[in-house]
Amino acid sequence: MPELRKDYVTDTWVVFSPARSKRPTDFHTQTRPTDKAKCPFCPGHEAMTPPEILAYRKDGTANTPGWWIRCIPNAFPALQIEGELHRHVTQLFHSMSGIGAHEVIVETPEHESNVSALSDFQMQEVITAYKQRYVDLTRDKRFKYILIFKNHGERAGASISHPHSQLIATPIIPRLLLEEVNALHRFYEATGGSCLYCEVVETELEEERRIVSENRSFVAISPYAARFPFETWILPKSHEMAFEDITDAERAPLASMIKEVLGRLYHILDDPPFNFFIHTAPCDRKEVRFHWHVEITPRLTETAGFERGTGFYINPVMPEDAASILRG
Amino acid sequence: MPELRKDYVTDTWVVFSPARSKRPTDFHTQTRPTDKAKCPFCPGHEAMTPPEILAYRKDGTANTPGWWIRCIPNAFPALQIEGELHRHVTQLFHSMSGIGAHEVIVETPEHESNVSALSDFQMQEVITAYKQRYVDLTRDKRFKYILIFKNHGERAGASISHPHSQLIATPIIPRLLLEEVNALHRFYEATGGSCLYCEVVETELEEERRIVSENRSFVAISPYAARFPFETWILPKSHEMAFEDITDAERAPLASMIKEVLGRLYHILDDPPFNFFIHTAPCDRKEVRFHWHVEITPRLTETAGFERGTGFYINPVMPEDAASILRG
Repeated sequence: MPELRKDYVTDTWVVFSPARSKRPTDFHTQTRPTDKAKCPFCPGHEAMTPPEILAYRKDGTANTPGWWIRCIPNAFPALQIEGELHRHVTQLFHSMSGIGAHEVIVETPEHESNVSALSDFQMQEVITAYKQRYVDLTRDKRFKYILIFKNHGERAGASISHPHSQLIATPIIPRLLLEEVNALHRFYEATGGSCLYCEVVETELEEERRIVSENRSFVAISPYAARFPFETWILPKSHEMAFEDITDAERAPLASMIKEVLGRLYHILDDPPFNFFIHTAPCDRKEVRFHWHVEITPRLTETAGFERGTGFYINPVMPEDAASILRG
Repeated sequence: MPELRKDYVTDTWVVFSPARSKRPTDFHTQTRPTDKAKCPFCPGHEAMTPPEILAYRKDGTANTPGWWIRCIPNAFPALQIEGELHRHVTQLFHSMSGIGAHEVIVETPEHESNVSALSDFQMQEVITAYKQRYVDLTRDKRFKYILIFKNHGERAGASISHPHSQLIATPIIPRLLLEEVNALHRFYEATGGSCLYCEVVETELEEERRIVSENRSFVAISPYAARFPFETWILPKSHEMAFEDITDAERAPLASMIKEVLGRLYHILDDPPFNFFIHTAPCDRKEVRFHWHVEITPRLTETAGFERGTGFYINPVMPEDAASILRG
């Protein structure tokens, strides 16, 4: 069973995950299975993964080819779905059982595809699968937060090149989300009911300099204090608390905006490694203020001792320049 | 002039640093000068760096060979020493002028050396130089925090292989340090005057399982919630608020402990990339509680979308196992 532990002093939590463990010698070289013949996410190789949780396919079979989207449990889960949540707290040591979910969403049967090159239909189906898995997992009351994310490229932590996203459900609300929730709550109270992210959308649309793209429902920006070169956020233009409330009508403009932003990064930065994640409200939304959005962080520079030691970032590219370059 | 910006919502600060800027194409391939003939930190190449701030040498010349420790301004500083500190705050946008210091401490004239292989004398001289530069910079009242750190290996962000450390002085107290300071303050108040890191030292010495090494003044531990495989901390066993108060008598055991821990990592993990940094009290110590320590974080795994999206870490190696392996 994986274990969650909190730092002695700070609110930093760590998942200790034996299923992902390695011997010291295993860290030296990392072999990456990108060979199509051995790819567990390719059609025909369904037996190489745990049985599927969900698949979009025409016929009624399971774990056979014919799907266009396939969701499976991660074969090396960071957190474990079975078990009860226990917590152990002393003055110095704070731990919890590593209960959670860790799933993979295979975005296409095409091994060589790139997510920005998916068809409009296929990208909309990816979004539908995100929502479907999200909604299903929120029924499990042990889960406090669900992060949908994607690692692209070896430097971004991807171990398999076949296009896929992941989903991790955690038994606590992670610190970065808690910080956003708390800040949005303070802003709401201080302004008598305004949303801080709505202000961001409105002000950035007025200022224009950091806008990467815009369509009827979404805006893509280079955020004012981007931590990473060419970091880009996609926000709903109207106030929407949670990703999982996305309507059928908004799915097409979201798919189109994700494809466009990833396509611009792909072409202008030559297929950079990146991480992509959705920040949505915690599972229990009672008295919570939020405005969901997507964050895309390319990995063009290494974070180093200064970042690790301070939590401060160094970014050599001004967001105004990044937006201008990405607009093309 | 570099610029500091705070995120719209959270307390995340970013340094935007034009001196380190790159065109989009420059991110594609990173050329790393590790050739001794072109190394700016090698003796005889003093003209390749800005003029030295400090050097330990026998004769009285400057910017010529003969030194065994040399401190210089970083040629591509993240922050700029000249100028006044201005702050600009609106509802959404919070920025400050990028005032600070960014220095390099060349740890040895030997290009091919490894820091764990330095002589006892040389390592003590590195510590003396850290302290001397630290104390000198605290006289500048614009600086609120000074981080001494080291990046080793390309994956850890080192751009030059010649052994060196860096020092960055910032005009705000970084969030990770503020979090420690606040937690130590709360513990002090709650316990009527105890230090949380003193508790950590005492309890870990009793429990033994996470001890990597110990000498008369320092203890090295695999921390209970280590974020990274083989992360190791070095703490003074007695209560010492700030690194810069280190006495001559403590310099030898600190040098010996740093050499030992880095040597164990070097041999057992085959010269892994790592970051090393000193967490000490903020420059203004008024009413501040702290207990300084060194954190060493090897880079054996990639942090990915989950870490970036949540601030949560996944570590495949239990600290008890890491300590046992490092004890050998």
